[in-house]
Amino acid sequence: MARVYNFNPGPAALPEEVLIKAQKEFVEYRNSGMSIMEMSHRSPEFQDIIDSAETALRDVMKIPANYRVLFLQGGASSQFAMVPLNLFRKSKKADYIHTGAWTKKAIPEAGRYGTVNVIASSEDKNFNYIPKVDKSAFSSDADYFYICANNTIYGTRFTEFPDTGDVPLVADMSSNIMSEKVDVSKFGIIFAGAQKNLGPSGVTLVIIREDLIGHAMDITPTMFDYKTHADGGSLFNTPPTFNIYMAKLVFEWVRDMGGLDAMEKHNFSKAKVLYDALDESSMFSATVAPEDRSIMNVPFVTGNPDIDARFISEAAEKGLVGLKGHRSVGGMRASIYNAVPAKAVDALVAFIRDFEKNNS
Amino acid sequence: MARVYNFNPGPAALPEEVLIKAQKEFVEYRNSGMSIMEMSHRSPEFQDIIDSAETALRDVMKIPANYRVLFLQGGASSQFAMVPLNLFRKSKKADYIHTGAWTKKAIPEAGRYGTVNVIASSEDKNFNYIPKVDKSAFSSDADYFYICANNTIYGTRFTEFPDTGDVPLVADMSSNIMSEKVDVSKFGIIFAGAQKNLGPSGVTLVIIREDLIGHAMDITPTMFDYKTHADGGSLFNTPPTFNIYMAKLVFEWVRDMGGLDAMEKHNFSKAKVLYDALDESSMFSATVAPEDRSIMNVPFVTGNPDIDARFISEAAEKGLVGLKGHRSVGGMRASIYNAVPAKAVDALVAFIRDFEKNNS
Repeated sequence: MARVYNFNPGPAALPEEVLIKAQKEFVEYRNSGMSIMEMSHRSPEFQDIIDSAETALRDVMKIPANYRVLFLQGGASSQFAMVPLNLFRKSKKADYIHTGAWTKKAIPEAGRYGTVNVIASSEDKNFNYIPKVDKSAFSSDADYFYICANNTIYGTRFTEFPDTGDVPLVADMSSNIMSEKVDVSKFGIIFAGAQKNLGPSGVTLVIIREDLIGHAMDITPTMFDYKTHADGGSLFNTPPTFNIYMAKLVFEWVRDMGGLDAMEKHNFSKAKVLYDALDESSMFSATVAPEDRSIMNVPFVTGNPDIDARFISEAAEKGLVGLKGHRSVGGMRASIYNAVPAKAVDALVAFIRDFEKNNS
Repeated sequence: MARVYNFNPGPAALPEEVLIKAQKEFVEYRNSGMSIMEMSHRSPEFQDIIDSAETALRDVMKIPANYRVLFLQGGASSQFAMVPLNLFRKSKKADYIHTGAWTKKAIPEAGRYGTVNVIASSEDKNFNYIPKVDKSAFSSDADYFYICANNTIYGTRFTEFPDTGDVPLVADMSSNIMSEKVDVSKFGIIFAGAQKNLGPSGVTLVIIREDLIGHAMDITPTMFDYKTHADGGSLFNTPPTFNIYMAKLVFEWVRDMGGLDAMEKHNFSKAKVLYDALDESSMFSATVAPEDRSIMNVPFVTGNPDIDARFISEAAEKGLVGLKGHRSVGGMRASIYNAVPAKAVDALVAFIRDFEKNNS
């Protein structure tokens, strides 16, 4: 069948150009007589792939020289433990802002290795906003300050990052990395599972300020120590070579598209088209406070679960797929990552309007 | 260029049929309108893929019902920590047989969480044999007994497994899993990084007896607790979906080839052809004691590093690649995994004979 409009929350849409390029060189990479998957991770060919991935990423995100880039495994869920195991070193305290499902997992995991201070939470309204925090609530002696920059499930997004002074700011950017410009120098660690904006699942990106490496707690498994991977150039053991190759192609695609300047315009424009349609509708409404709306994940509801279910089912018949909302919110969710084209959002908006017209 | 004969130690050769099949459905999986990499890991399509992978694996390896199959990330190196973190529970002691590079990493990692008793080692002869162990040396109160079933670097292989009685036997089978028949019921845990016999790198297979799940030490990161992944059906967090799909294709390929009966014949036959040629040669010799020779990794040397280097270089010109030995052994190493066809070994043997003739 034709390629569908894919609104999956992750794993999610990849750029069609990237898929076609990877398909062409899938069985034989360049003139090597073998697939990338059959190459040694110690070969010059693979070293070139991982180096090119890092170069493109640094270029696109303007990563300062005093930050290391690591390609790891285990997803953001592994980072929930790696962050405290590596960063708890003086006070063994950390501040967390609780914005939903991901921090709900990250907070108790950190709590096993030190003291977690939840300084703000949006749980009172089913996480449909980003809590405003006052600097007076911050622990000045915290070893780090933790946020989830964009919540995939609830569709919220930090539009401004807390100014944590000398306390390293750690951000889970799994669902919005590379969606807009970001000043990396404001962060101690940025991490992201690849499967939303960076490539297929199976590789986890960590961008870490150098001085935060090398202080893991004694009990830290070798593979959970950032130093292991920084020293080994992400090749301490066999990395997920094909996944890193795919991420490289995606990074280069973003660069070729005009980098984060262009990506940001593309994403804000898509998000505006969709939110405007929802705000104009009398049947559908976005669930998140306007000032905290994600430009990647857009949950919306009719208030009637039966109508929601029919919308999702009729949309799928028209090739608009992945629109079922997470059970925590219900209704619908359109994930409109970098690789989702404007025409997909246009098609969704047209369908929303048609559906409303036919059902009022 | 033409497909080369690939003797890489890992990542390594994959069955050409598998690569071609995966290439065909790379951009669009079946009639879904999207790539596998763009599908939710919670979709019925992916559930079918991971279920089919497990079914084929259980069928091929005849895995008893009281064993769980887990698809994890982080490679064997993560298992070096996961095994002690999950299995140290009573005496916090374990017996290890030291057979080279991999146990050299596994032993100190376990030693961080309990007491490791190295009951035998082949370090005295640069690990070119499997030490014979006497049951009287085993610790009867050990929480587990650990071996590396096949050493990729030194080319040794356990032909008989130690009878550890009630003490669970743990085997790192990264480089020989599915190469020959094995009685899974003799083991507590079998684990393997995929990138030799199972698929591309980025997925780690763990086969674990059910009663060993659920006893992790308190300090164990959630992602390093086998229970997390057993309870979640390997879907606690987003798994490496494409890598699991590739492993499924490889498992099905092994099954279609006639399972481990056929694979074992295929591998012993290839190994015999190569070892016979080396034993007959007056220029080349295999480095491992005949009774402990791996059927997957065959190191050999001339004794002259200059001649070795010329051999490797001339072989590569003839499309025989990946033959450079590991620096710990020097010389050459041919890794002849399941996906390496008999004709590749025949071509290598012909080249060995030609080279010897032309250089005597």
